[in-house]
Amino acid sequence: MHLPDRSDTICALATAPGIGAIAVIRISGNKAFEVGSKIFQTKKGKSINFEEVKTHTIHFGNLMLDQELVDEILISIFKNPHSYTGEDTLEISCHGSTFLQQKILEEIQKKGIRLATAGEFTLRAFLNGKLDLTQAEAVGDLIAAEHASAHKTAIQQLRGGYQTAMRELRQQLMDFASLLELELDFAEEDVEFANREQLKLLIQGLLIEVNKLLNSFSTGNALKSGIPVVIAGKPNVGKSTLLNAFLNEEKAIVSDIAGTTRDVVEDQLIISGYRFRFIDTAGLRKTEDQIEKIGVERTYAQTEKASIILYLCDPGQSTPEEALNEIKALKIRMANEDATILTIVNKTDQYQDQLEDYKNLPNAILISAKEKINIEVIKERLLKIVQEQELAIEGQIVTNARHASSLKNAAEALQKVIAGINNNLSTDLLAFELKTSLYHLGEITGEIYTDDLLGNIFSRFCIGK
Amino acid sequence: MHLPDRSDTICALATAPGIGAIAVIRISGNKAFEVGSKIFQTKKGKSINFEEVKTHTIHFGNLMLDQELVDEILISIFKNPHSYTGEDTLEISCHGSTFLQQKILEEIQKKGIRLATAGEFTLRAFLNGKLDLTQAEAVGDLIAAEHASAHKTAIQQLRGGYQTAMRELRQQLMDFASLLELELDFAEEDVEFANREQLKLLIQGLLIEVNKLLNSFSTGNALKSGIPVVIAGKPNVGKSTLLNAFLNEEKAIVSDIAGTTRDVVEDQLIISGYRFRFIDTAGLRKTEDQIEKIGVERTYAQTEKASIILYLCDPGQSTPEEALNEIKALKIRMANEDATILTIVNKTDQYQDQLEDYKNLPNAILISAKEKINIEVIKERLLKIVQEQELAIEGQIVTNARHASSLKNAAEALQKVIAGINNNLSTDLLAFELKTSLYHLGEITGEIYTDDLLGNIFSRFCIGK
Repeated sequence: MHLPDRSDTICALATAPGIGAIAVIRISGNKAFEVGSKIFQTKKGKSINFEEVKTHTIHFGNLMLDQELVDEILISIFKNPHSYTGEDTLEISCHGSTFLQQKILEEIQKKGIRLATAGEFTLRAFLNGKLDLTQAEAVGDLIAAEHASAHKTAIQQLRGGYQTAMRELRQQLMDFASLLELELDFAEEDVEFANREQLKLLIQGLLIEVNKLLNSFSTGNALKSGIPVVIAGKPNVGKSTLLNAFLNEEKAIVSDIAGTTRDVVEDQLIISGYRFRFIDTAGLRKTEDQIEKIGVERTYAQTEKASIILYLCDPGQSTPEEALNEIKALKIRMANEDATILTIVNKTDQYQDQLEDYKNLPNAILISAKEKINIEVIKERLLKIVQEQELAIEGQIVTNARHASSLKNAAEALQKVIAGINNNLSTDLLAFELKTSLYHLGEITGEIYTDDLLGNIFSRFCIGK
Repeated sequence: MHLPDRSDTICALATAPGIGAIAVIRISGNKAFEVGSKIFQTKKGKSINFEEVKTHTIHFGNLMLDQELVDEILISIFKNPHSYTGEDTLEISCHGSTFLQQKILEEIQKKGIRLATAGEFTLRAFLNGKLDLTQAEAVGDLIAAEHASAHKTAIQQLRGGYQTAMRELRQQLMDFASLLELELDFAEEDVEFANREQLKLLIQGLLIEVNKLLNSFSTGNALKSGIPVVIAGKPNVGKSTLLNAFLNEEKAIVSDIAGTTRDVVEDQLIISGYRFRFIDTAGLRKTEDQIEKIGVERTYAQTEKASIILYLCDPGQSTPEEALNEIKALKIRMANEDATILTIVNKTDQYQDQLEDYKNLPNAILISAKEKINIEVIKERLLKIVQEQELAIEGQIVTNARHASSLKNAAEALQKVIAGINNNLSTDLLAFELKTSLYHLGEITGEIYTDDLLGNIFSRFCIGK
């Protein structure tokens, strides 16, 4: 993959598409001011010498295209390196008609400025050292954030997050790597510049950090993308009704016939800024219906991914002992050991006299989905569980799958270095494993990158960012 | 109607709603800087003393809400009177997630700033003397402009257009009105301060200007809202097929059964920046079908409003003489004397040997709508007609129905002043008519206004402008 040419001057609409009071068009690159002085005139009809005006100033005047007044605009000037991209940048605030946005962009392009590709402004910010790669990714996350917890993790990452600490540890590792290289240069003399025990201690410390971050990823990913909550239980215990009670709308098909829900229906609810993804499942029962069988299998698959499982039971169908056995069966299939199971005893309006023993089931909440009794209690518990998970994470949270993958590769390489030291491995093999771990750590913040990696990351951005 | 309280500080999203790279939130009013210093911190963690920083400067830093970093933003400072509204104004450029836009607006509102009503920023600009009323209206037109000619008329109006000349003439009239008032004060002495002949000359000059402007309105309105082009002709001559050929899509229902098109179907096409509104009509024939009868009546009604009529004829149905008679009948019903009729001879692919006499029909263009032959020729002619109409207007163009209405009222009152002078009307009656014309002229630029008028104008704006 080829990255777009950095020597071009680029432009794009920076604000949301559509009609607004104003729209902002951004121009960045070494021709920005030259083109700016061609299209902008002060109210007195003079063009601006951008070399003489100060950075971070705003000027009111006329946008002239082919001697014709096209709009009255504000033009904001950012001189390199004091801009988002690190290049000379102009921001044109024009009136927000879509016609004007298009016209201005078209005319600017006629002056030798090209339309930016997706994420190209942020790509340049990265390449010009204004942001590291995690911060650049955080910009994308920030713009995409739809709820408070996704926003919070993005802003933490934009601020620097764990990257600063990582960079320091990586620097220490690099010092050791240099010493190992030096040993290789003097291989015939059998000297040892890099103290193996010190290196081991450093790596052990680094591994603790890396593992902490790795462990934070499942929570971090859930905070960003939504916390998966699986609603499970026997057929006809009221799973779809519960989902609908959460969502206050008739999303899932509710019926009295067992086995109505075959697809995994998913819907989302934001509770106090946290997004929960509720996954309704086919009832867990032995079935001969082929399609329903697939549904039951999917239920188990979903259960494996869940952070929280709402196990629903119907006192009319299961004794407390039977319910407990089903919960135990669910626990065995759970991939995530830290997932919490809440026992939701449903239809309590119908079985008021028989509920005493159900109260002792693990994390029991007695509700009626149909009558919407105690639905809020479930919501509060969900919130509490997530907030506790979040608090349990010491320090920074990893939300990005790419970072988690690099951290995992780095951790494996670091383990091999330790094993190598323990087994008195030769210097050149140790150096190789150390370089591998440095490579993966460097990938995270973008000290090491390929054009493919950057292309992959920035192509997911919108044009204009 | 009560106008919103001008002493409030107001805020709104200024850019289009939805996700963008950035979004701009505008705050205007005397509390803008106070709130700004509470929510904004420089990268060094210091708050800004807005009194000390210069107007038209941009500052990069953190948006803090309740001690929490919410975003990295640019804040632009405009000090009164050097802002759009004429008040102290801040513009916050934040990352463009809808979550962030909402959150920032909500938090700002908690600090005693209220959400702006529709058009309230521009209303304040008007009330603070930054724009006259026609310019304020032009801002609304500019944002709504969807094609080049609407955009062009809006930017002319924003620039001042005919208002400056109008204001000067109005000032001269006011001088005369004062002299007439003076005469009334000295009524018993029978003096004449205001020279009647000079007044008449002034008004005659003014009337020429006012009538020029009034005459420009039908073209101006067409340039802004679209030029009405009626497609008329006997049933089954191919009107709907022609419309579809213009639009390159199957918008109107086309069939071989006469009388298929009963509704007035309208669609729009932008040719070289001019919007044409094509109005397909029921065929012009005597019919017993009640619903079709209404359609035929509507055709005539549409014809009356048209700037351009495309009269379609089918050589298989009408001889050249019959076609000419139909064109004459159409002309009689036309309200707009300046409307142009083009004779479109259709189905020429079927009647190639019999076309010679049709070529002499007025403004004849020979086409085949079905085979899309010569459709471009019609488009070029349409464009030429409109450009000639536009050129025919000397000076400024009125595009706003409110202005046209006030100009009409002013013209009537001015006529009465002249008639009064000719008939030696008493000073007090002359003074009354003069004041009436001053009132209507003053309404245009907003020297005279009511809260109802302003409420009516600005409620059509979007929030944020």
